[in-house]
Amino acid sequence: MTADPLFERVALIGIGLIGSSLALNIKANGLARHVAIATRRKETLDKAEELALGDAYHLDAADAVKDADLVILCVPVGICGAITREIAPHLKAGTIVSDVGSVKGAVIEQMRPHLPAGVHFVPAHPLAGTEQSGPESGFLELFRDRWSILTPPEGTDPAAIEKVEAFWRGCGSNVETMTAEHHDLVLAIVSHVPHLIAYNIVGTAADLEEVTQSEVVKFSASGFRDFTRIAASDPTMWRDVFLTNREAVLEMLARFSEDLATLQRAIRWGDGQTLFDLFTRTRAIRRNVIEAGQDTAKPNFGREPAGGPKAGS
Amino acid sequence: MTADPLFERVALIGIGLIGSSLALNIKANGLARHVAIATRRKETLDKAEELALGDAYHLDAADAVKDADLVILCVPVGICGAITREIAPHLKAGTIVSDVGSVKGAVIEQMRPHLPAGVHFVPAHPLAGTEQSGPESGFLELFRDRWSILTPPEGTDPAAIEKVEAFWRGCGSNVETMTAEHHDLVLAIVSHVPHLIAYNIVGTAADLEEVTQSEVVKFSASGFRDFTRIAASDPTMWRDVFLTNREAVLEMLARFSEDLATLQRAIRWGDGQTLFDLFTRTRAIRRNVIEAGQDTAKPNFGREPAGGPKAGS
Repeated sequence: MTADPLFERVALIGIGLIGSSLALNIKANGLARHVAIATRRKETLDKAEELALGDAYHLDAADAVKDADLVILCVPVGICGAITREIAPHLKAGTIVSDVGSVKGAVIEQMRPHLPAGVHFVPAHPLAGTEQSGPESGFLELFRDRWSILTPPEGTDPAAIEKVEAFWRGCGSNVETMTAEHHDLVLAIVSHVPHLIAYNIVGTAADLEEVTQSEVVKFSASGFRDFTRIAASDPTMWRDVFLTNREAVLEMLARFSEDLATLQRAIRWGDGQTLFDLFTRTRAIRRNVIEAGQDTAKPNFGREPAGGPKAGS
Repeated sequence: MTADPLFERVALIGIGLIGSSLALNIKANGLARHVAIATRRKETLDKAEELALGDAYHLDAADAVKDADLVILCVPVGICGAITREIAPHLKAGTIVSDVGSVKGAVIEQMRPHLPAGVHFVPAHPLAGTEQSGPESGFLELFRDRWSILTPPEGTDPAAIEKVEAFWRGCGSNVETMTAEHHDLVLAIVSHVPHLIAYNIVGTAADLEEVTQSEVVKFSASGFRDFTRIAASDPTMWRDVFLTNREAVLEMLARFSEDLATLQRAIRWGDGQTLFDLFTRTRAIRRNVIEAGQDTAKPNFGREPAGGPKAGS
């Protein structure tokens, strides 16, 4: 890290899990001299100030972006367009505008038309998160060893892309660049459809009449509980993801359902070999995930026994 | 714990994750004076002996059950019947025979006909496990605060049920009793279908041509990696589960698919309210799971950042 920070002034619009984790990184890793935070809800803004996440706090995004060299929208993808329209007249020439949305095609479509000439647009998506939301859920290590994907539209200033890349590396993240279209396809299978089926199985289980909800909860450690974690993710954020990455999600979902029908048929007809072959193949992929440093090798994610360490036993 | 152990001699047939965890519990919690271990593979038996899991080691299950007061089959459900036939002539009168299978109806159907009169049969299923298998994967805490379900057939000696219940409580487990039929229905939704869809999504992702397998692995922290853990579970055990709990799995799978079709339709038609309502409802169920002590409240299961603590950064 040089003595000069990467940016003079950064504006974070939205201060949930990602925004607050960025704020902590900017401060800890000296990525900017000044951080302006904007969020619409007074309560959230007060919380951000109480946590001393920034240097200035605004209810109006337009106030936060004045003089900023880097503006990052950290909000659900459904409102990126509206916010961009609001802040656009207040952006200074040469500013870099970025975001952290889980869908890139739709975000670019929504944001780009509002951005004035002379402003650089470098969309980004850090593949990191937890099931929690809000400014108090952020933490410094969130991006470490994770991947952030940049999807700059063709013709974007290479120097602006480089600065955004350096920013994410400064947060401990790896960086890869690809088209928005490919990003949305990749994310549909590694993130969006997995979230959808987790939400779905938890919903199915909750609606049964033969098995009570209390039984489902009580006996959840046999597999179900893992899905409840993902299905506890922020409802607004995820609604927007599915509405804005519709094409890719529907495509991947169709493949998932086809494959599931094949397994269903194997079960119905007692075809153990098909099941065994798949289950062997998937085990190998787990090993690859661990070797790639994308998950812990500890059994059960290394989570402690529920209830924590017990006194006197 | 009284000075007298619950059983004089216990025989564990099969010494994988569950068998070895039981062996550790029997020793640590003084549940029996003598533990005989049997497994078919020489290599596994040697491993068990090297780990000092028992007091006697046998390649032949029939040798291990002689004089045992409690015999527990800790093997994939598909071979419970064959093993019961082998050991039946060697069981002493009054012995309790139990198992740890994830499916109860089929296990009872397979085992019961072979058991001689005067032997008590108390089927059991500890709802605990990890994605790992083999004698070296067992650990003492596996059953702590988890649930074990007993499904004794009607007419089973209450004293035998009580002893098996005490045994599982001695391993730190909670105990509940229900019919085998209800057990199989409950497990289909809290365990079997979740495993099936995890195996399935990992298979779907591995088979894509537009997204490479290396991209899937690299970007897996955005949701997918959680599914790879479950999809790394023992292939033989899980093949047998699906083949033997066919009816209940197909029923629950049909409900899952119906519900998924509804979500698919909501995405296609841009019905955000349906998505938002479900995602809000499922979040509440996560809270119930945590309050019931069945999972950690820590974000991301409290797993450490991949790669572990980093030096010098």
